Amino acid sequence: MKIIIVGATGTMGKYLVSALGKEHEIIKVATNEGDIPTDITSTESIENMFKQAGPFDALISTAGPTYVGPLKTLTDKEFRKGVEGKMMGQINLVLIGQHYINPKGSFTLTTGVLARDPQKNFANASAANGAVEAFVLAASIELENGIRINAVSPTVIENSPDYFPYFPGEIPVTMKELEFGFRKSIFGASTGQIIKP
Amino acid sequence: MKIIIVGATGTMGKYLVSALGKEHEIIKVATNEGDIPTDITSTESIENMFKQAGPFDALISTAGPTYVGPLKTLTDKEFRKGVEGKMMGQINLVLIGQHYINPKGSFTLTTGVLARDPQKNFANASAANGAVEAFVLAASIELENGIRINAVSPTVIENSPDYFPYFPGEIPVTMKELEFGFRKSIFGASTGQIIKP
Repeated sequence: MKIIIVGATGTMGKYLVSALGKEHEIIKVATNEGDIPTDITSTESIENMFKQAGPFDALISTAGPTYVGPLKTLTDKEFRKGVEGKMMGQINLVLIGQHYINPKGSFTLTTGVLARDPQKNFANASAANGAVEAFVLAASIELENGIRINAVSPTVIENSPDYFPYFPGEIPVTMKELEFGFRKSIFGASTGQIIKP
Repeated sequence: MKIIIVGATGTMGKYLVSALGKEHEIIKVATNEGDIPTDITSTESIENMFKQAGPFDALISTAGPTYVGPLKTLTDKEFRKGVEGKMMGQINLVLIGQHYINPKGSFTLTTGVLARDPQKNFANASAANGAVEAFVLAASIELENGIRINAVSPTVIENSPDYFPYFPGEIPVTMKELEFGFRKSIFGASTGQIIKP
């Protein structure tokens, strides 16, 4: 299977490249690195990436910056970080990628627990995650040729201990559990699912 | 109580102006009409609206355009209609309005069933609704001075029969039920709730 991994140099991305790379052809996509450097906040850059990558069977996105800071001083300007990054970046990967993906292919986006269970300072991530999860439901009923779409929606990740203090009471998800969430989406048959690893 | 109704000239807005206007001071806000004409896609226009309105006790937003059309031909450009309108328009009403609202005041935004139960042609509305609902959860744990926030999330509305064919199987919500959803948010004590009238 030919799998594009967007965010290939991040914590999750690196792990997935290694885990899935043993059995599959991986195309690594990251902002200034990887096989095809791509800025997911630019539709032109995304379009170029798909043209270079050629037809593919699965796309995983682990990418998506958001703004972290208190609601009290939050403005439209900071909010755009998550709108352009984690939200429209991932949504545009699907809107554009639907014209390049092979029949029976799959899109797997990354959201997070903040969509349903908020923490202080993360209103921007909550909104971006909520948008992407609802988009996944909507896209799943319109994609054609057996193409599927799911989101993996983890809590805080074991390999990101810097975030633990921001997520009191959340039991960190292991990298293995996370990998299995993505495996379920890519190699399973479900669509329109929010997978909670 | 002094209540700002944004979208005061729309189907829902008109009904709420009439229903709540008997007992409360209403400030009507709409794009080119109302007491204070306001473009909610402009943060400057929103800021001016709050300055003119002065301190208030409740804000209801029934506003928010989205794009309707098939996923297959959807692009970033059309998607921005809902991002700027129903999503960031409503979110900015809260981000800016939090600095003008009275203690113990409330924000009530409007989302919709498409956040959890999609229909074809409405991916943009699904994403905007999902973003606003997750934002409401996140904002509710950070707003101070007893300020509350909820969303009213109806299915198709009885007074908008043009939409019925797009929502097969959805039992239309009555205007009275809708009004009661808003009443629960404004005059009740709950916060961070997605009210399904």
